[in-house]
Amino acid sequence: MSAIQTNVEAASASYSSSFTQGHLALPPAKKYLVLTCMDARIDPARAFGIDLGDAHVIRNAGASAADALRSIIISQQLLGTHEIVLVKHTGCGMLTFGNGDAYGLVGQNLGQDAVEELRQKEFDFLPFPELEKAVVEDVAFLKGSKLVPESVAISGWVYEVETGKTRRVV
Amino acid sequence: MSAIQTNVEAASASYSSSFTQGHLALPPAKKYLVLTCMDARIDPARAFGIDLGDAHVIRNAGASAADALRSIIISQQLLGTHEIVLVKHTGCGMLTFGNGDAYGLVGQNLGQDAVEELRQKEFDFLPFPELEKAVVEDVAFLKGSKLVPESVAISGWVYEVETGKTRRVV
Repeated sequence: MSAIQTNVEAASASYSSSFTQGHLALPPAKKYLVLTCMDARIDPARAFGIDLGDAHVIRNAGASAADALRSIIISQQLLGTHEIVLVKHTGCGMLTFGNGDAYGLVGQNLGQDAVEELRQKEFDFLPFPELEKAVVEDVAFLKGSKLVPESVAISGWVYEVETGKTRRVV
Repeated sequence: MSAIQTNVEAASASYSSSFTQGHLALPPAKKYLVLTCMDARIDPARAFGIDLGDAHVIRNAGASAADALRSIIISQQLLGTHEIVLVKHTGCGMLTFGNGDAYGLVGQNLGQDAVEELRQKEFDFLPFPELEKAVVEDVAFLKGSKLVPESVAISGWVYEVETGKTRRVV
């Protein structure tokens, strides 16, 4: 067992020993979803004020709306959410590379078979060069999608990893 | 401004007022990633023992490994993680419907244009009928992928929303 796995078991014993929220329902109580980045420096529950049971939290590299579309449709159509809070952040890794760089690293570390698999899928790592522009574009993508109801409220934000602040962009 | 948006602003003011971790580096300090579900009843930081800055956290509907592949490659190839903790959970919404149900709801709520868009993309909502089997299959998918290095340690777990416990499956 790795140190990480031992840590999960210890956290489970500690967390469950004082756990009192086994009664929560499957659908999010406050009927919204938060889409943010996988970045290790973000704790959505505390930074964005999400109590357990209140909201779906979707996280991927860069808080990409396109990448999250499957989860968003399920959240809205099967579990009744009708508001989206989209949060990208300062210092995001997605600002630091392009698809060519990522393909190059995959080739170097995993070989040409792996690159060929990416090429066959026309794999896009979805990096972006400008943070606030990317927030605006992802909100526009969701507002323009046939797969997201027009009645859904969508706001776009930037979380500052340097200050712990979350500020609205759109 | 909606009540949800007001809540984000209040959380930002409160969280940032005592924030002391603006110095954390972009790459996860403990070099691992957690993949879990977007379910509102999961707080990964507390339930799985993740300190701020230690691990990437990827979340989507059902903790799908296939859906998370872009984020996983970026985490490993650009940000140096080399262990995956995959956690699905009891009471998951993905156990409760099939693709036909999801297509039906989209048609009913968003119209035939939306369904046509799904069909053109051969859109798969990735539901699963058996929880532990799905954990085993997703771990096998990652272990078999050319896009994940063989040296990466991968474990599969189930979080119990009723008890707050996380138990290992594979």
